[in-house]
Amino acid sequence: MKMTQAVHKILSHYESDNPGTKANLARILMHGRLGGTGRLVILPVDQGFEHGPARSFAPNPLAYDPHYHFQLAIEAGLSAYASVLGMIEAGADTYAGQIPLILKVNSSNSLATAKDQAVTGSVRDALRLGCAAIGFTIYPSADQAFEQMEEIRALAEEAKAHGLAVVIWSYPRGSVSKDGETAIDVTAYAAHIAALLGAHIIKVKPPTAFLEQAEAKKVYEKAKVEVGTLAQRIAHVVQASFAGKRIVVFSGGAAKDLAGIYDEARAIRDGGGNGSIIGRNTFQRPRAEALAMLDQIIKIYEGKA
Amino acid sequence: MKMTQAVHKILSHYESDNPGTKANLARILMHGRLGGTGRLVILPVDQGFEHGPARSFAPNPLAYDPHYHFQLAIEAGLSAYASVLGMIEAGADTYAGQIPLILKVNSSNSLATAKDQAVTGSVRDALRLGCAAIGFTIYPSADQAFEQMEEIRALAEEAKAHGLAVVIWSYPRGSVSKDGETAIDVTAYAAHIAALLGAHIIKVKPPTAFLEQAEAKKVYEKAKVEVGTLAQRIAHVVQASFAGKRIVVFSGGAAKDLAGIYDEARAIRDGGGNGSIIGRNTFQRPRAEALAMLDQIIKIYEGKA
Amino acid sequence: MKMTQAVHKILSHYESDNPGTKANLARILMHGRLGGTGRLVILPVDQGFEHGPARSFAPNPLAYDPHYHFQLAIEAGLSAYASVLGMIEAGADTYAGQIPLILKVNSSNSLATAKDQAVTGSVRDALRLGCAAIGFTIYPSADQAFEQMEEIRALAEEAKAHGLAVVIWSYPRGSVSKDGETAIDVTAYAAHIAALLGAHIIKVKPPTAFLEQAEAKKVYEKAKVEVGTLAQRIAHVVQASFAGKRIVVFSGGAAKDLAGIYDEARAIRDGGGNGSIIGRNTFQRPRAEALAMLDQIIKIYEGKA
Amino acid sequence: MKMTQAVHKILSHYESDNPGTKANLARILMHGRLGGTGRLVILPVDQGFEHGPARSFAPNPLAYDPHYHFQLAIEAGLSAYASVLGMIEAGADTYAGQIPLILKVNSSNSLATAKDQAVTGSVRDALRLGCAAIGFTIYPSADQAFEQMEEIRALAEEAKAHGLAVVIWSYPRGSVSKDGETAIDVTAYAAHIAALLGAHIIKVKPPTAFLEQAEAKKVYEKAKVEVGTLAQRIAHVVQASFAGKRIVVFSGGAAKDLAGIYDEARAIRDGGGNGSIIGRNTFQRPRAEALAMLDQIIKIYEGKA
Amino acid sequence: MKMTQAVHKILSHYESDNPGTKANLARILMHGRLGGTGRLVILPVDQGFEHGPARSFAPNPLAYDPHYHFQLAIEAGLSAYASVLGMIEAGADTYAGQIPLILKVNSSNSLATAKDQAVTGSVRDALRLGCAAIGFTIYPSADQAFEQMEEIRALAEEAKAHGLAVVIWSYPRGSVSKDGETAIDVTAYAAHIAALLGAHIIKVKPPTAFLEQAEAKKVYEKAKVEVGTLAQRIAHVVQASFAGKRIVVFSGGAAKDLAGIYDEARAIRDGGGNGSIIGRNTFQRPRAEALAMLDQIIKIYEGKA
Repeated sequence: MKMTQAVHKILSHYESDNPGTKANLARILMHGRLGGTGRLVILPVDQGFEHGPARSFAPNPLAYDPHYHFQLAIEAGLSAYASVLGMIEAGADTYAGQIPLILKVNSSNSLATAKDQAVTGSVRDALRLGCAAIGFTIYPSADQAFEQMEEIRALAEEAKAHGLAVVIWSYPRGSVSKDGETAIDVTAYAAHIAALLGAHIIKVKPPTAFLEQAEAKKVYEKAKVEVGTLAQRIAHVVQASFAGKRIVVFSGGAAKDLAGIYDEARAIRDGGGNGSIIGRNTFQRPRAEALAMLDQIIKIYEGKA
Repeated sequence: MKMTQAVHKILSHYESDNPGTKANLARILMHGRLGGTGRLVILPVDQGFEHGPARSFAPNPLAYDPHYHFQLAIEAGLSAYASVLGMIEAGADTYAGQIPLILKVNSSNSLATAKDQAVTGSVRDALRLGCAAIGFTIYPSADQAFEQMEEIRALAEEAKAHGLAVVIWSYPRGSVSKDGETAIDVTAYAAHIAALLGAHIIKVKPPTAFLEQAEAKKVYEKAKVEVGTLAQRIAHVVQASFAGKRIVVFSGGAAKDLAGIYDEARAIRDGGGNGSIIGRNTFQRPRAEALAMLDQIIKIYEGKA
Repeated sequence: MKMTQAVHKILSHYESDNPGTKANLARILMHGRLGGTGRLVILPVDQGFEHGPARSFAPNPLAYDPHYHFQLAIEAGLSAYASVLGMIEAGADTYAGQIPLILKVNSSNSLATAKDQAVTGSVRDALRLGCAAIGFTIYPSADQAFEQMEEIRALAEEAKAHGLAVVIWSYPRGSVSKDGETAIDVTAYAAHIAALLGAHIIKVKPPTAFLEQAEAKKVYEKAKVEVGTLAQRIAHVVQASFAGKRIVVFSGGAAKDLAGIYDEARAIRDGGGNGSIIGRNTFQRPRAEALAMLDQIIKIYEGKA
Repeated sequence: MKMTQAVHKILSHYESDNPGTKANLARILMHGRLGGTGRLVILPVDQGFEHGPARSFAPNPLAYDPHYHFQLAIEAGLSAYASVLGMIEAGADTYAGQIPLILKVNSSNSLATAKDQAVTGSVRDALRLGCAAIGFTIYPSADQAFEQMEEIRALAEEAKAHGLAVVIWSYPRGSVSKDGETAIDVTAYAAHIAALLGAHIIKVKPPTAFLEQAEAKKVYEKAKVEVGTLAQRIAHVVQASFAGKRIVVFSGGAAKDLAGIYDEARAIRDGGGNGSIIGRNTFQRPRAEALAMLDQIIKIYEGKA
Repeated sequence: MKMTQAVHKILSHYESDNPGTKANLARILMHGRLGGTGRLVILPVDQGFEHGPARSFAPNPLAYDPHYHFQLAIEAGLSAYASVLGMIEAGADTYAGQIPLILKVNSSNSLATAKDQAVTGSVRDALRLGCAAIGFTIYPSADQAFEQMEEIRALAEEAKAHGLAVVIWSYPRGSVSKDGETAIDVTAYAAHIAALLGAHIIKVKPPTAFLEQAEAKKVYEKAKVEVGTLAQRIAHVVQASFAGKRIVVFSGGAAKDLAGIYDEARAIRDGGGNGSIIGRNTFQRPRAEALAMLDQIIKIYEGKA
């Protein structure tokens, strides 16, 4: 497929990257039904690590099988599939070349006693498994934030030198309030930090209109930053990501009803976000329902729904 | 011996591994009386480290000699022998090529003040001693869990690159209750984490019907996951290990009577577990009794008892 | 442009450096409108990391775009542009060769819970992005001070070996009082430490006449060190930087009125400081105002205002 | 001198070691008056580090000179001389080839505030100084035990790869009671841990009949392990060291009278221990007395006294 | 200049060192007015780091300039000049080959919150700057003592392998009392530890007759170690430094009157110490006075005063 203008423009913003990394970004942006549009929908499956296998897969037991997720992402025509080491190892050969892969190289779990993540994969792993990118989570307001930033700094340097792209999940957690974790000022800050750390693709949660930091609140009010609708808040997060020069995708969060999911996708689209990264809402639904939902989401990003 | 269909199928699930690692997995699966069946019985001797020499070997003083365990495992026709550095060094040459070896590369001890393990062996050690795999213990719910995961991540990457297989002992300990350490939800989670970390062989304890985590309990009840019998629980743990695509063996635990041991083996077999890893119950019995017991266990896995 | 006597003399003080590092220092000293004078004005943009995107850029939303700062620094005829990884990556190719770049390789942020900085860039990053220098912040009186010194020691050794220059931001923070952070004794000490650590360019805040340390106070009074005017204090900081043999620039601090900014620049000039490094006062003003202000500051350093 | 059957048999137990390491073990076992008997007496001088120079050497000031200890060990016909970096550096050239050297690569001191040891030498040091082995102390029951085990794991791997032998001083300290430090169960456990860590030569203190650990006590009583006499306890420690397949030597401890020293040596001999490692009792005596004492100890191990 | 017997004898004690290291020791011992005598006077300038620039240099402002100290040491005919990275970098080229240099590779400062030192230089730095030795401070009784010992162990190994000499400043601090920091038992112990760590040159403070450690006190009294005069105490410290086989120099400490300085030098000389390392007493005096004082000290070591 020939490169589109939309993708060409996006790639031009990654001006310091080598051709290897740009090719891998292009691979993600040109793949699936949204290929070439500059939009993307990613299937992430790291819930088994985070919440355990039964909480993740018992609602739809076929999902215990790693192949299930590869097949689902391929059949739905998604842009990429992101998961952790063991899950990727279990299908990378069977589905080699059929969908871009993102190796999540750190992981949390709900048995753990610390608000942290363990590094569970490497750039070398990503390369031997044929992945297009590595993924990494930071908790910008946690006690471990500096250590996590130094980990992704080293991993990102190595990834870029080897022609891989870098995806950063930026989830404020720790020193901020519960509401603050999705506050618009904190979310924009989290996206900006990911951009400053050199991420190619930034993943944050859809923000609320809440303002967490007093110093920031003053500025938002004085400068009259519009954050009343979700689309406006998405637009602000995109602005905070180098004035739209970095790809930003938004996570789906806990399972919810279809109308809520579609409204969120429309707001992401209208605010100029690049797309959705949607896990539990996908694989915890029966396969046919999930495919229908993803079809509808893709249509929303295509402007057809 | 020609590769059987059963082993061929198991190996096909390790699709991302290099031929060196697959050959070492095959070596274990094709060795001993259960060779070719897809079932395995492993002799592990790390009790001397964990509980001291007298508590481990005084009941059967011949077992103070490292050669004793090599000979026992070979004579019983077991699938592999797993032990720590000094024990393997003391017999690796005499018994070279006679039984697959698993070098346990971390160890705890009951003199220690921390709920942790020290790394006591390396991939280079495993290679120079002719081992087929490395073994590593994680405590998924301990304070040191993240550090242990990062240790095995690095060791597993190195092991796989050098054609070795990776065995993970996954023992929840720390933040869970005493009952929770063998709860079905926690055990399935522990097995899943080992699979996500890239283990080829997973070792957990036989689970009870207890449910530790409130969030998980809701899901087990809502999704009606059957965990009433040991065989059902084994089947659930196997399901949590990539829908049966990873080898799962169960430890014997503290010394018990023969009937209990045989019943446990039958439940592991009937639930679809791959086998047993049985230490104290073996080497603390007089040699003849141990051989008779292992003969019976093997017959159970062969479906003959 | 031919090397001037003023720059030649400055370079002669860096007698242990290799030609690569001297060439990069020369590149900064010979660039822009102050090129050749021995004076310099640098634009630093690491506020987004430290205070978040809205607090930094909402007053002048064009500044969300990384290109804005490159263009501003170039159009104003500044000596160099300093920023963090993501910001530099986003413009290094477009503006390659148009202005010397300083890659800030550690960063703090106001979501963080510790008074520290994370290392967020590397010498290899600086080299692949065509930078002339790395920048690093130390907090000489913080608990993390020794660790930061050891980080910059290693980074500086590597930078110098690869022909890069080293800029140290030396900001006392932690064990000193709030007033002490800009006290003349503490500021001179902070500049001296940066010099001892091998910095080529030292950045400190303009000092007040306050004396923080009792032992130092005695000496200042006994030796009658003149610190009554800002120009005298600047001269003392320059003296503490190897008797003027190291380049010292002063930061602008929080946004203030133009008269205050110009007075400060005159004092820096008259005290023998090498120049200003001025961020928020620049990019938070409308572009035209910022350019006018920088024009005036440059004239001050040229002795024309 | 031709290899004896006794030494040949001992070496056969180190079946996984390369010829370099075996040659160095042979060098120690074939050296001095006990050469070829399978018994050995080693002079260790690390007291200066542990207790300071005056407490170590003021009773016999000639011993301040590093050469004194080399000469004493050579003249007494001992099997090896063990000391720390500076002491070995100060005589390694003068006495090159005259006695096997053991470089003690970690050290404690009584000025220190932690119950730990600093690593003060390396495998590279041992090689450049012509040593036959490295020595390392672990405190199996201290908070630092796991860290120490990981240090010796790495050092031992490197030492063995370079053809050196490994001596582990295993001294329980920390979580055990004062009596427990020399309890028979704890001492046997300490020796066993050293063996499991891959030590070629194990050094422990002569054990008392005290039993420290409740779980172990039950086993000793049930299995009727005989620990009434020192010879029986020595035999049990030897048994715990791979059924006698590892060399075990016993330290002399604080200065005591000659009768006590000789009785201890006879018990070590009769229990099947390989010999003594005796420091303060040697170098704090006048030279002639020390030589007479060592002559008598050697005769005891020869079965002549 | 031909090697003298005195220097030849000293060098013979460093029997394990390579010719590169011996040549650098010889360079120091053969340089300046005391060259060839086996005595040495060293100028150390690390006060700027430790106490700040004004407290160090305001009494004699010429000393702010790094060149001042090189010139002073050269003109006074001293044996070597020791300083930290920035200071050495600022003059190493101008004065190349005119005086042996010692690069102090760790440093403390009075803004810091921990009783520690940061590593601020490397062996590679010492080599590129043409230094003859590295210098390193340990605080034997501080909480960080073990870590410092492990740092100098690694640095010393690297230095010796590259033909550099190693100077250890051994300053007890932390767990000892204020009086104990210069107690004779503690000072002798500190010197002995430096020797055991492999130092070529040991720097300690002139000791008092105080005895800090109860266990040591008993031995000093029982063995009747004479420590009544400073010369006797110097002799004891020299004895504790391998019976005089290691070079020991004594620091000058806080500024004092000339008579006190000369008396101390005579005691060092008479006790067999190798010389003085004297900083603040030198560079805080007017240049002419400092030169006169150094002339007199040198004459004392020459036996002419």
